[in-house]
Amino acid sequence: MPIGKPALTAPDLAQVIAAHAALRQRRPLVQCLTNTVSSNFVANALLAAGASPAMVDNTQEAALFAGIADAVLVNLGTPTDAQVASMRLAAEAADAAATPWVLDPIAAGALPWRGGVAAKLLSYYPAVIRGNASEVIGLAGLGGGARGVDSSADPADAVGAAVDLLEHATAVSASGPVDHVVGRLGEARDIVLIRIEGGSAWLPRVTATGCALGALVAAYAAVAPDPLTGLVAAHVHFAVAAEIAATTASGPGSFAPAFLDALDAVDAAALRELARIGKPEPV
Amino acid sequence: MPIGKPALTAPDLAQVIAAHAALRQRRPLVQCLTNTVSSNFVANALLAAGASPAMVDNTQEAALFAGIADAVLVNLGTPTDAQVASMRLAAEAADAAATPWVLDPIAAGALPWRGGVAAKLLSYYPAVIRGNASEVIGLAGLGGGARGVDSSADPADAVGAAVDLLEHATAVSASGPVDHVVGRLGEARDIVLIRIEGGSAWLPRVTATGCALGALVAAYAAVAPDPLTGLVAAHVHFAVAAEIAATTASGPGSFAPAFLDALDAVDAAALRELARIGKPEPV
Amino acid sequence: MPIGKPALTAPDLAQVIAAHAALRQRRPLVQCLTNTVSSNFVANALLAAGASPAMVDNTQEAALFAGIADAVLVNLGTPTDAQVASMRLAAEAADAAATPWVLDPIAAGALPWRGGVAAKLLSYYPAVIRGNASEVIGLAGLGGGARGVDSSADPADAVGAAVDLLEHATAVSASGPVDHVVGRLGEARDIVLIRIEGGSAWLPRVTATGCALGALVAAYAAVAPDPLTGLVAAHVHFAVAAEIAATTASGPGSFAPAFLDALDAVDAAALRELARIGKPEPV
Repeated sequence: MPIGKPALTAPDLAQVIAAHAALRQRRPLVQCLTNTVSSNFVANALLAAGASPAMVDNTQEAALFAGIADAVLVNLGTPTDAQVASMRLAAEAADAAATPWVLDPIAAGALPWRGGVAAKLLSYYPAVIRGNASEVIGLAGLGGGARGVDSSADPADAVGAAVDLLEHATAVSASGPVDHVVGRLGEARDIVLIRIEGGSAWLPRVTATGCALGALVAAYAAVAPDPLTGLVAAHVHFAVAAEIAATTASGPGSFAPAFLDALDAVDAAALRELARIGKPEPV
Repeated sequence: MPIGKPALTAPDLAQVIAAHAALRQRRPLVQCLTNTVSSNFVANALLAAGASPAMVDNTQEAALFAGIADAVLVNLGTPTDAQVASMRLAAEAADAAATPWVLDPIAAGALPWRGGVAAKLLSYYPAVIRGNASEVIGLAGLGGGARGVDSSADPADAVGAAVDLLEHATAVSASGPVDHVVGRLGEARDIVLIRIEGGSAWLPRVTATGCALGALVAAYAAVAPDPLTGLVAAHVHFAVAAEIAATTASGPGSFAPAFLDALDAVDAAALRELARIGKPEPV
Repeated sequence: MPIGKPALTAPDLAQVIAAHAALRQRRPLVQCLTNTVSSNFVANALLAAGASPAMVDNTQEAALFAGIADAVLVNLGTPTDAQVASMRLAAEAADAAATPWVLDPIAAGALPWRGGVAAKLLSYYPAVIRGNASEVIGLAGLGGGARGVDSSADPADAVGAAVDLLEHATAVSASGPVDHVVGRLGEARDIVLIRIEGGSAWLPRVTATGCALGALVAAYAAVAPDPLTGLVAAHVHFAVAAEIAATTASGPGSFAPAFLDALDAVDAAALRELARIGKPEPV
């Protein structure tokens, strides 16, 4: 479907707490087609947060599994010909089965070949696109160079690109020090921007944290009432966990296990205490 | 060889302590053809436990290395055409060289393509098959759906399937809260069931712990007097380490490094204090 | 270029501190074509040390990215046909662009197929070759069996082989309890040996630590005045971090995150206190 369900009410703290409870109760099965650097951390992040990962990304099984999974993650970090073929099969099957799938377009704007891969994947209508600012800008075709897979742009600069991408996806986020999330709200389908604060300066110093966020977005897409609400909930769960982990970490190495512990520990009380969700702003 | 050496005496604490001492002394070289999610954790688990890992899984080198290695692990977590070809080459070479090899049939019962791969691999006579209950049931062709790669069945329910698999392997285990191990005992080759308690509730919340157990099973297969004794020893070493790690872990993230520390720390005294090995029961 | 720039002055503590400062300031982008076991740890080690990793290793993008990156790492741990093709493309492009690249010839001497791959890669003139003693000996064609990917030879025994490899690379190191580094010094281009002490006995008990060192070597090659100085600086940063990490680790599992923390924490003061760099010795 080209344009998915809008959020009927603004994704606020109550909605996030409800989505978190649904995640813990339903433990969605998330099929991950992700990069080799991230696969272990992504699986552990999903397990810690309360979801169930399955890294099924070969051409023989990708489409079949997309029909079984509750959500699908497609992450372009280290694509190969075979994995790209699997990504197309999984995205197509997810679209056909109305299973929400998430596109994490790592470096898609910076490298032409994977840019073409990402463009083709857009035709299968991801529920959500999540990237850093450079990646969102790059994917929207607004140009913007990327420094490897790191973000070199401010998420605020990616809002226009994110809005453009709402042609292909129901909700889009550009993550960074302040996460910027866009989607449609209410019966009028007004496009809104929601800013989420929190997180930790250690996040960009640990590899695959962005990938883990993309996976969490997929998990929430499976249990939330709509993609925008799920996307906000995933960002909030992630940011709150990072904030908790930063209180005990003494460097990037100890941050990683502390962050997984915190993804597990985050509960309604922690969300109430630490979530910083902006009110929807018109764009 | 279709049916390997039975355990001459029941694998009890003394046998496990002897196998553990042999592992530490001989530091077996374990060739791992495993999934991309687990490769780092599997290698670290082997190193921590006292073995030497080598992840040689390309078609050019897989068979050659199976002739050099002391044991081979074949784990079906994320198979590709090329890796499957390597698995066949390695299993065939291991069988020809009488090198023990272990099959970890992840999701083989749930996904037809890899089910076919697993069935073909059985013809090379693994020394041991290790899986969770769903996987053991699925592999034995008794049906049984799987939820991704997680176990959704009780190991006790998999005993019949495990016994059926003794047509192909010398010993079989279904792991879970209580590990269920089957094999043949004594000159009469009576089929027995041995239950091993212990472990930690954090284990299924950390990815690749089952894969690490499969690798440890391969390491012990290289040094134990027979596959059943090695299989029991591996499960006990693993369960005792998990129990130790759980005393310091504050979540799934901190459990993982604590578990690796504990795999290294387990010694004869820890085995004596914490091992819980059931007496062989007729099946 | 067949023989690169010699070190104009002996790489001593002052040079190492200057290279470390340059690393932190310039945050070089390091393209890694590495093995599946190491990719996560390598990326985290680079991020922790102060560099920026990008794991671009498909045939479509490898050469393009080698023209963008500040340095390239080629690690032969788990080569496949496709990755080997990418390695050649990246090494060729790096050579053409005068981008320094590092060869980590894991098990190249022990396994003929990858030995051939390594030999071909030498024709693209790596700035640096880094391996353990067995690998350096094996690569130089002096024979020498390898036990998996672990070192079974003393680095001191690899000095002759390392010197032979100076036909292909500007600097070469054999790492171990005492790292042995060789290269050319001064306008006379005298071949010298520099020994670096430090490190930790936990290093060989954690997988991919050698791979992480190779990646750090690539990062320093991008910022140091010459490959030999960069190579010495990388070994010193690594050894000092390991020594710091060992003071808090209680096993191989806890050593890994402590080591990443320490790679980040190492500063000029730590280098001054803990670096143990031998004076250049004639070879």
